Amino acid sequence: MQTVTVKQLEQFIQRCLTAVGMSERNARITAELMSEADLNGSDGHGVFRLPQYVKRIRSGGINVAPNIRVATDKGATALVNGDDAMGHLVMRYATDLAIEKAAEQGVGWVGVQHSNHAGPAALYAKMPMQRDMIGIYVAVGSANHLPPWGGTELLLSTNPIAVGVPAYEEPPIVLDMATTVAAYGKVKTAAQRGEQMPEGWMMDKFGKPLTDPTRAAEGFLLPIGGAKGYGLALVFGLLAGTLNGAAFGREVVDFNADSRSSTNTGQFIVALSIEAFMDVDQFKRNVDGVIRSMHASPTLPGVDAVRVPGERSHRIRLEREKSGIPIHPGLAQQLDELARGLATEALL
Amino acid sequence: MQTVTVKQLEQFIQRCLTAVGMSERNARITAELMSEADLNGSDGHGVFRLPQYVKRIRSGGINVAPNIRVATDKGATALVNGDDAMGHLVMRYATDLAIEKAAEQGVGWVGVQHSNHAGPAALYAKMPMQRDMIGIYVAVGSANHLPPWGGTELLLSTNPIAVGVPAYEEPPIVLDMATTVAAYGKVKTAAQRGEQMPEGWMMDKFGKPLTDPTRAAEGFLLPIGGAKGYGLALVFGLLAGTLNGAAFGREVVDFNADSRSSTNTGQFIVALSIEAFMDVDQFKRNVDGVIRSMHASPTLPGVDAVRVPGERSHRIRLEREKSGIPIHPGLAQQLDELARGLATEALL
Repeated sequence: MQTVTVKQLEQFIQRCLTAVGMSERNARITAELMSEADLNGSDGHGVFRLPQYVKRIRSGGINVAPNIRVATDKGATALVNGDDAMGHLVMRYATDLAIEKAAEQGVGWVGVQHSNHAGPAALYAKMPMQRDMIGIYVAVGSANHLPPWGGTELLLSTNPIAVGVPAYEEPPIVLDMATTVAAYGKVKTAAQRGEQMPEGWMMDKFGKPLTDPTRAAEGFLLPIGGAKGYGLALVFGLLAGTLNGAAFGREVVDFNADSRSSTNTGQFIVALSIEAFMDVDQFKRNVDGVIRSMHASPTLPGVDAVRVPGERSHRIRLEREKSGIPIHPGLAQQLDELARGLATEALL
Repeated sequence: MQTVTVKQLEQFIQRCLTAVGMSERNARITAELMSEADLNGSDGHGVFRLPQYVKRIRSGGINVAPNIRVATDKGATALVNGDDAMGHLVMRYATDLAIEKAAEQGVGWVGVQHSNHAGPAALYAKMPMQRDMIGIYVAVGSANHLPPWGGTELLLSTNPIAVGVPAYEEPPIVLDMATTVAAYGKVKTAAQRGEQMPEGWMMDKFGKPLTDPTRAAEGFLLPIGGAKGYGLALVFGLLAGTLNGAAFGREVVDFNADSRSSTNTGQFIVALSIEAFMDVDQFKRNVDGVIRSMHASPTLPGVDAVRVPGERSHRIRLEREKSGIPIHPGLAQQLDELARGLATEALL
């Protein structure tokens, strides 16, 4: 498989985004965040999405000259109107604001409306860690693939949550999970690679397992823990969508099927200042202790080691910083076509 | 099955708690919250726990004359030291403070340390709703029953989350869930009633299903969604425990086995003001719309209706307000013995 450096990837994404009218600055911020997604092993949420983003921009579904602004502001909270910008730009803005508020108030909770798909949830949950804060990010997914528990109408999305908790010597704990057994990005990656899905990811409308990702539109994702995962997806949707005046439930625009309409995507970010609760170094050392106790647990038969969330991604990042980011042949071909269509220099 | 009114139950609990040295005021607050748990159908978290609480109080594990106080305070956040009080009292105090902060700052995030088991999570997530706020409550469970994913050492608890979201005409959405397939309270209730558990709740150390609740100490609970539920339990534990200087992981004192030691239980409550984001009535009407769209979903074969979280509890509450709270014969006998031991008037 061919590989590229993170710099090459950033520059390629930036070229494509400026080619469709985005400012140099906004294209650079977006390209950095998208490339970081690939660097961290979020293969379904980085450059893989570029053709779709470009299509949306060209169709008018994403505003390339947005006025991202605070809609309402109260103490430790704010609501940001993303003006239909790329989600990465809206969330970068909202996260900076949440961090600023947390530095003053101990916590900052910033919701967004009129945003768009912003890549992997972990990107934003990790940002507050640089300021010795814990980050919590929740999003309304960009297409409904989940029915309410016991139902068949696609009213919910995978509505993911990410939480970033800094440690001292250990890599940080970074949880990034869909409230479904599999994220829809994984289904798309499987389809693009011509792979089958394991049973348990999806079900059809008659309750039968669905394993062919090219038939994904005929069925739905399954929530974690049955009714519990449904409950989490519902509550996260109310907090990230409804509370922000953003789309949720029947209002969600399927960004796979419709490239033109404003999605009014909702997300929120919480930054929580560690020093508001305890000494920062002490906290981080205690987190190290928790991580090491998990690692020290005896394992079930057949399990090589116990891991903590974020560990796999951290390992991939170190590998890719050294050896480059692999670009799957199917994706390479799509990016080649994209570059040709935009009359810009190819990635590979 | 015999039934009691909520008033009878409150008075009985209050009598027992004052008999072991609690002040009238603290006994009343605790009794109201414990009875509300039973009224709402949280049968494993209400009066069912009274014999255990009394045992802890008599053994010195719960402080009956606590000085519950703010340990640190910064803007929209605070850390409360519960001074080893009954968890209900600590969380009532912390939730009032979070609501007060949210009224000023849009959000209030209050963590607690040196608390104790506080009953069902929903009790606290529902309190902010009375002030047109959303409530989020997370606790470190009071005994470790969950290993890290792939491991066998009991380093984690069911670490539950509850979220309360008010609606307009519909009953509110109240999610109250353990991060395990079953809460340990359900295992205890099954044991006390002489019932078997379904497969999938627990596993033994060889990876085999465990269905006899009297053998619960030989195995462990299973997390929802495998590694995802483990990730949630871990992150909730860091937020509710470690960040508050409370016990987490190996430090957790099993309150079933040890009635003497301070548990240093950690919890947190977030109150989020709806009006900081949008018009309160509009939000509640939108939540009604979401609930109604879920109810209107076609169902899978064999499913009678789609429900939203909190619906079952709300229905039980209406029934029990009318017909009384049923007291299972096994529990009735335990409460009888308790009353005799405390030389106070029996419940039934």
